[in-house]
Parts: sequence; structure tokens; C-alpha cells
Amino acid sequence: MQKLVQCVPNFSEGRRPEVVEQIVAAIRAVEGVSLLDYSLDASHNRSVVTFIGPPGRVGEAAVAAAARAAELINMEEHSGAHPRIGATDVIPFIPVAGVEMAECVELAREVGRELGEKLGIPVYLYEAAATRPERKNLAQVRQGQYEGLKTEITRPERAPDFGPPRLHPTAGATAVGARPPLIAYNINLGTSDLRIAQAIARSIRGSSGGYPSIKALGVMLEDRGLAQVSINVCNFREVSLPRIFETVRLEAARYGVNVVGSEIVGLVPLEALLDTAAFYLRLEGFAPQQVLEKRLLDLVE
Amino acid sequence: MQKLVQCVPNFSEGRRPEVVEQIVAAIRAVEGVSLLDYSLDASHNRSVVTFIGPPGRVGEAAVAAAARAAELINMEEHSGAHPRIGATDVIPFIPVAGVEMAECVELAREVGRELGEKLGIPVYLYEAAATRPERKNLAQVRQGQYEGLKTEITRPERAPDFGPPRLHPTAGATAVGARPPLIAYNINLGTSDLRIAQAIARSIRGSSGGYPSIKALGVMLEDRGLAQVSINVCNFREVSLPRIFETVRLEAARYGVNVVGSEIVGLVPLEALLDTAAFYLRLEGFAPQQVLEKRLLDLVE
Repeated sequence: MQKLVQCVPNFSEGRRPEVVEQIVAAIRAVEGVSLLDYSLDASHNRSVVTFIGPPGRVGEAAVAAAARAAELINMEEHSGAHPRIGATDVIPFIPVAGVEMAECVELAREVGRELGEKLGIPVYLYEAAATRPERKNLAQVRQGQYEGLKTEITRPERAPDFGPPRLHPTAGATAVGARPPLIAYNINLGTSDLRIAQAIARSIRGSSGGYPSIKALGVMLEDRGLAQVSINVCNFREVSLPRIFETVRLEAARYGVNVVGSEIVGLVPLEALLDTAAFYLRLEGFAPQQVLEKRLLDLVE
Repeated sequence: MQKLVQCVPNFSEGRRPEVVEQIVAAIRAVEGVSLLDYSLDASHNRSVVTFIGPPGRVGEAAVAAAARAAELINMEEHSGAHPRIGATDVIPFIPVAGVEMAECVELAREVGRELGEKLGIPVYLYEAAATRPERKNLAQVRQGQYEGLKTEITRPERAPDFGPPRLHPTAGATAVGARPPLIAYNINLGTSDLRIAQAIARSIRGSSGGYPSIKALGVMLEDRGLAQVSINVCNFREVSLPRIFETVRLEAARYGVNVVGSEIVGLVPLEALLDTAAFYLRLEGFAPQQVLEKRLLDLVE
């Protein structure tokens, strides 16, 4: 089986499609890398690109994209709703197949070094690639954002892992890291009472005593008149979709409220859904290789 | 997306691996065809081969394998526990991706014609490819087996769809058909009372008033001291795995018995497990293209 790493860089440009397309073109130009998706968010003024390939090629594509972004995006002129520190704001590497997290950490460090040494962009390693415990959390790496980091970067505790101890004049700084696949998973409740969704969100998320790898918010789906528990599953091997679903169902029942449905936003690793089927069917001795298409994929690779 | 058809021919040889390997070699020799699996059953004296590829190539490989089997297997010397009519006993074509059932029916007819005209083997079309209603059922096509069919074949109602109105001297006859993917699915009960498994099997199987596409038996797992409902799911789009599991669970509960587990034997189409996850998580608007590996497969093809 071929080694496969996914990379989901975020760029601080969500309003000029022609700029994002040039960055995407730099990724497409790397042989062996497959572009899976890209999207622009105008209010965040931010774009998210998803691509996949063997570790070396994915690293090469990430560096090429960051180089292009540094030419095309000027952080001095950037504004938007989402916190950010640079033109290429964040580059996470995600193990998909035949790769351990340690290899993605290694890849993050190599890419970080290149960004620092060749492009002169200060780089902060985060999550599994972090060199300091407080940098595991991306929000903490982004503290003060581009504007604040201009002066903060000279303080020892904000010193970058690679690159110069000052922001790149147009590209700012970049967070480079390694993390498990993230699943954006929302559960819709049969109630218009937002407080119930908020209470359930609090009960499962790490920040208020729930699962450390779960982020959750209660939000209102105005068009449907439903309250939703909006969840980021940051490590589905630690906390499975069935466990989340059943916990939310149980907590909702305490208010006499049903779960009316759930949704997966964007991409999801096959393993998370196979685990779900195996959980509910109480499958014994099931191997992913029993999935016809999985066999096929392995043959192709 | 590339067109993909699966083919699972059964050959009347389960005791001489060197013979089966020569048949398998004829399949492997066809470019574009991927061999997924093959296994021999000595008591049935029968082997099952699974391969996949574009429709034309899969048809070519099936004809090549049947030609080799006609040279290597002599039905006059064959005995075994499983009903059979020929050296290549049955050739089903199964739509996997980008292919409708109608195209597999067409393929079955082309392959049937070749077996009849080029190899002189009488061919009966069955299931979705059947030309007469009574031949939809493979068991009925096999009635009387090789020995009985020797004389029966001359009767108008047993006339083959292709080939001569007499058995091939060594290879007998072959059933060629098209059908949906079959899932071998077993559910284990927390009881050693075989009668409970038998009663549940009767309640779900078509032959006793249950789902027409479900075949089921109650069997005993002697080593574990558990009764099992052993099921063939012949059309998972008609009757889903969750519906089968939940029906068996409900029926078992009526006897105060739990479902302790279930197992999928052999290969399973991805769609059947994605449907299962979507059912239990009550997923709204889920598309198989959201599965990361599925995207990858489509890119590769």
C-alpha cells in the first residue's frame, strides 16, 4: 500500500478567486499530488485547500503553495473574521494510509525548515509537531494574530521554531503541524431551544470537562427552526462517531428532545464510517480489507 | 469513473490446487482484470474465484477460465456435496461501479453465446439475465444436477439458451447470469437453542414469507455453543443490513435472547456499510463522495 498524507493548508485570501487559483495551480503542478477540494470564504477572507499524495510530494506542494501565497497575498492589506497570522496561515499534515503520525511530524518539521530558511517566513510548529506544550493548541499559536505578533515575536516565548525572529513583510508567519483527520459533525435536535444544544455541547466538549479531543457549540439553524450541536471531532479513534451520537441522544432525551438527524460536513475518513457500521451491527472480526472498493484501491496503489 | 464489473465464477474442483491455479492463471493473464480472491472447498469439491475489471475484460477472462476448466475438469469423475451442472458451474456478473444491471445482463448473454458457440458448452442464463421466469432461480437451473441434466436437456423446457442441446462431454453445462452483489451475513445469538435461530431465520427469509431477497438458516456454532442465523443478503439495496440486524434483534428479544455479535463473510460493497452508518447516525444529505478514500479511488480511475 502506498503511503498517503493529506494536507489542508489555509490561505488568507477568500475574496479574489484568481489569487487562490494561482496558489492551487502551484499544488497541481507537483506530480503525484491529487487536489481533492478547495473553497473560498469571503467573510473570513480565507480559503481552504485539500490535497493528498505521498509524503515527500505533499511537502513539496505545500512549500510551493506557500511561496506563491507569499508573492500574491499582502497581510498588511488583509482583513477578515477568522484569526490568522500569515498569508499561508496554517499547514496541517494528516496521516491517511500507510503512515504513522511520527512521519507527519517529521514532514511538518522539514516543511517548516524550508519555509523558514528558503522563504524567510517564521514558522511555529503545532499540535503533534509542537516543540513546546503550549504550542500544541493552534489558537495559542495564533494569539494576537498577525498584527500582535509583529512585536510579540521578539519575546523568547514567541520565538519561531524556524525562520527569522521577525514577520515576513507580506506573508507574516505560518503554523505548520501534524494532526489526526478532523471530522466536522453536526447533530440536529428536535427543538428550537438553543439552550438545550448549548448544554449538550458543554457536556461533551473538552473545554468544559468532556472529551479532550471534542470541540462543540450549540447553534441555531434559523431556516429549520432547530437547535444544533455543532462538533469538531479532532480524533475519531479516541472518541468515535457512535459514542458522540449516542451521548448526545442520551443528553437530549433528558430534556424530552429527539435527535432528528446528523450531518458530516466535508470529507470523512472511511475508517470512521466502517467503525460506525461495525459498532451498531456488533461486527466480530471485521477487516477493512473486506470492503470491495478498499481491495481495489490497494490493488491500484 | 471507470466501469467496473465483478465476476465470481464457481468451478467444480476443490481438491486439486494445481488445477484451480491453472484456471486462475487464465484469468490473471487478461490485462486490466484484477484477481481479488480464490478459495477451494474440499468437501464441496468446488472453488470460488473473485475478480474485477471493465466489463469487456471481465467477460474475456470468464471465457478464458471456462475454456481452461473444460480442459482440466472431467465431470464424469466429479463428486462433491454442492449441487453442480458443469466444470464451470456458474458465472455471475455483478455491477460494482458506473455500470447498471442491464449492462451485466448484456455481458452475461455475450459470454453465454461464446461458451455455447466456441466451446460447445450448453449455457443457461439465470437471475437478472434469465430468458424464462423459472430460470431466475439458480437452484431450478441446477435441478437434477450434471447427472440428471444429461437426459433432461433434450426436453424443450430444459433447452439451453446457447450451445448444443447436449452436455459437453467433460465440462457439462454452465449457468451464466447477472445479479446484485451478495453479502454473506451471520448474526450470533446468546443462546445454545438452535430452534430459536431457526425460527428467526424462517421469519426473515423469502421462502417462508419474509423478504424475497433474503435466504436464511439457523445453524449451530458448536465451538462457541451459540446458535446463529446464517443469512445471504441477495440485494442489500432492497433489504439493508440495519433492517436485517434490527429485525433479528427484535425477534430474538421475544425469546429473551440477545444478539451477541454479527459477522460479514468475505467481501462487502462499500455502499452497504455506508448505508449502515448513515442509518444509525441518521445522517442527512450524506454523499459517498465525502469519503476520503472514495475520492481517491475516483481520481485514480
